[in-house]
Amino acid sequence: MPEYSIGLDLGGTNLRAAAMDRAGHVLDRRATATNPDAGREGMLGCMVNAIAELRHSCGAAQLAGIGIGVPGFILLKEGIIRNSNNLACLEDFPIRAEIERRLNARVILENDANAAALGEKWMGAGRDVDDLVLLTLGTGVGGGIISGGRVLQGYLGMAGELGHITVYPDGNPCGCGNRGCLEKHASATAITAMASMLRLGEGLSAREVYDLALGGNEKASRIFLVVGEALGVALATLVNTFNFPLYLLSGGVLAAWDLFAPPMLAEVRRRSFSFRTTATRIERATLGNEAGLFGAACLPWVEAGPANGAA
Amino acid sequence: MPEYSIGLDLGGTNLRAAAMDRAGHVLDRRATATNPDAGREGMLGCMVNAIAELRHSCGAAQLAGIGIGVPGFILLKEGIIRNSNNLACLEDFPIRAEIERRLNARVILENDANAAALGEKWMGAGRDVDDLVLLTLGTGVGGGIISGGRVLQGYLGMAGELGHITVYPDGNPCGCGNRGCLEKHASATAITAMASMLRLGEGLSAREVYDLALGGNEKASRIFLVVGEALGVALATLVNTFNFPLYLLSGGVLAAWDLFAPPMLAEVRRRSFSFRTTATRIERATLGNEAGLFGAACLPWVEAGPANGAA
Repeated sequence: MPEYSIGLDLGGTNLRAAAMDRAGHVLDRRATATNPDAGREGMLGCMVNAIAELRHSCGAAQLAGIGIGVPGFILLKEGIIRNSNNLACLEDFPIRAEIERRLNARVILENDANAAALGEKWMGAGRDVDDLVLLTLGTGVGGGIISGGRVLQGYLGMAGELGHITVYPDGNPCGCGNRGCLEKHASATAITAMASMLRLGEGLSAREVYDLALGGNEKASRIFLVVGEALGVALATLVNTFNFPLYLLSGGVLAAWDLFAPPMLAEVRRRSFSFRTTATRIERATLGNEAGLFGAACLPWVEAGPANGAA
Repeated sequence: MPEYSIGLDLGGTNLRAAAMDRAGHVLDRRATATNPDAGREGMLGCMVNAIAELRHSCGAAQLAGIGIGVPGFILLKEGIIRNSNNLACLEDFPIRAEIERRLNARVILENDANAAALGEKWMGAGRDVDDLVLLTLGTGVGGGIISGGRVLQGYLGMAGELGHITVYPDGNPCGCGNRGCLEKHASATAITAMASMLRLGEGLSAREVYDLALGGNEKASRIFLVVGEALGVALATLVNTFNFPLYLLSGGVLAAWDLFAPPMLAEVRRRSFSFRTTATRIERATLGNEAGLFGAACLPWVEAGPANGAA
């Protein structure tokens, strides 16, 4: 067996883990449903078991490191999940220290959207750049910023909360206390809520609204216009702020790209001199829901190596 | 003489240059009025003369490097000012190569707001941090981002255009093509325009509007409320994006801090979970209009040394 790392992506729905070599080849993997009802002990057990099995299968001697991506605000220095909508049972608990104790190995913790951005840089749509921003359009809107081949973490590990960029100062209220957050206008949840506002139906999924729009429903089409414009306002601000070569979108809402991308790109062109006059790219991510897993596995390589350590 | 660097800050009004040692002590300095009517040749002559005089006075052998801050979008790799409202005569001309040829020395070019941010990190309000954002509130609103002790430049050198963050999607039109840019609601120019809209007077300076507000004029007070709220919307987005420990404000509008800061901070608290729950600071810069000069002089040290090279 060659040298390898183990990545684990803990989502609200699924837990995925994989052993990968430096070239991103998957040597072995584990997957299971996340069961928040199992409580903290159940969740910890699942995570530790998946990693321990992979280590056993691939050989403890060749293991270069372990990376874990988890949702929520993370205090990186302390290794604590401060706030997580999906995994409340793991909040305010020294999760990194506990996993390290049980595995007797060092663990690198990272926010899941940050890990996904790193995954796209390592093995996805961002392979050819060192700097990119990823927006994940799912239940909420997450963000990850890669600068110089590394995750931009901020001083506490809370950077990249791009779902809470204000796009409409008087817009929809958000649980974070703000109004008009990007995720209140461009997430799957926002699409469901707008469909309800327009009396298209209660509890429609983003996919169902998309199908209505494809079938000619004008109200449904207008929802994706709103999604595109909100993304355009946010992306213009990100382009003007970072001047990175690449901005990626991923997540379930990406399936509606052909409906929201034209108004989104028109809005960015209008709002960013820098976008209009350079070859800055806004594109679809390519790793889908595996991005966070790849990024988690990449964390040990980035920490060990040069800025572009995984290459 | 100890080892020293030369910094030059080319503004629309003044040209300043100084020789400084590694500790930021000014060994010698030159200053002159910028005269755009002198055309490109006149401007280049002034810049080269100031640097050559300092080099002669402090000794060519001890010169560690030369840094120059200039306003406008800069293509860093090419050393070209792409677009500058104040210095049109220097646009689209290989300014760095020409200065290097005349001085027979290497020159580091940087955007003036980026240089100011670096100056504040080196010798100003940001001495104790490695990561900060600076907003300069002057004729326009400029921005500089310091990440890991270095200027975040973006892939073309156009990062930090924070005056063009969209704060009100349907707000005032901006020359950049956008609407509701921060600088259309929080610059000295915006204050003058709002005073005109409210029939307080034509061509009032930000200072005059400030004096009116202090004298009890309610319309003038409302202008600084708008300034504060617009800054708050932008800063909340920056805090959520970067999670840096420090955000600084500088420029002429800073004199009205006591009027715009309370609504600004209230808005950031409301709009940023991260700001409310951490010790993130939003403060006044301390170097005033010398920040760009210090930052320019710091550029050679940062390039030569470790990330925090100037320390």
